Amino acid sequence: QQQQQMLRAGAGRSFRLVQVRAESAEATASVAINPSIKKESDKVVDTVVVGELAKPLTAYCRCWRSGTFPLCDGSHVKHNKATGDNVGPLLLKK
Amino acid sequence: QQQQQMLRAGAGRSFRLVQVRAESAEATASVAINPSIKKESDKVVDTVVVGELAKPLTAYCRCWRSGTFPLCDGSHVKHNKATGDNVGPLLLKK
Ligand code: FES
Ligand code: FES
Repeated sequence: QQQQQMLRAGAGRSFRLVQVRAESAEATASVAINPSIKKESDKVVDTVVVGELAKPLTAYCRCWRSGTFPLCDGSHVKHNKATGDNVGPLLLKK
Repeated sequence: QQQQQMLRAGAGRSFRLVQVRAESAEATASVAINPSIKKESDKVVDTVVVGELAKPLTAYCRCWRSGTFPLCDGSHVKHNKATGDNVGPLLLKK
């Protein structure tokens, strides 16, 4: 399963990179998943007071690539397409 | 910043792997961040009806490594330590 995932993630990329990834069974799990959000912080934790939600449905980012983090801005779509991943937001429903 | 992050992420791993990562400015962003959760699904989206929250504070996973996904079980601590990452949950407060 994980091997298959890594090969899918490497689709369209150079063979060399795919080969190096395939050598490590832990490649997916062994890199940082947050490239840029609050990297000065030891741990990025956000709190939503649910009583203060403005809209009936609000999407919160779980891909760490949103320009409006902690909110989702749809950037997971690009990430999923580029890597073969399948991540998406957490929806908060009033 | 990103280069630094990649080198930190590679600490304790083979030099060869670090070198290959450093060659790609997009290494962090170009792998799947979800190794195992619902990989049969095209996109993992979860919905929380906030009126149904049982506890005053509930943590939701954003590291994709929780054994109780979509809830946080603390697995982000191990991931952060292993990779130098700084991810953490989204807290929902009643
Ligand atoms: S932008 Fe990150 S989950 Fe949508
Ligand atoms: S277990 Fe994933 S954020 Fe805590």
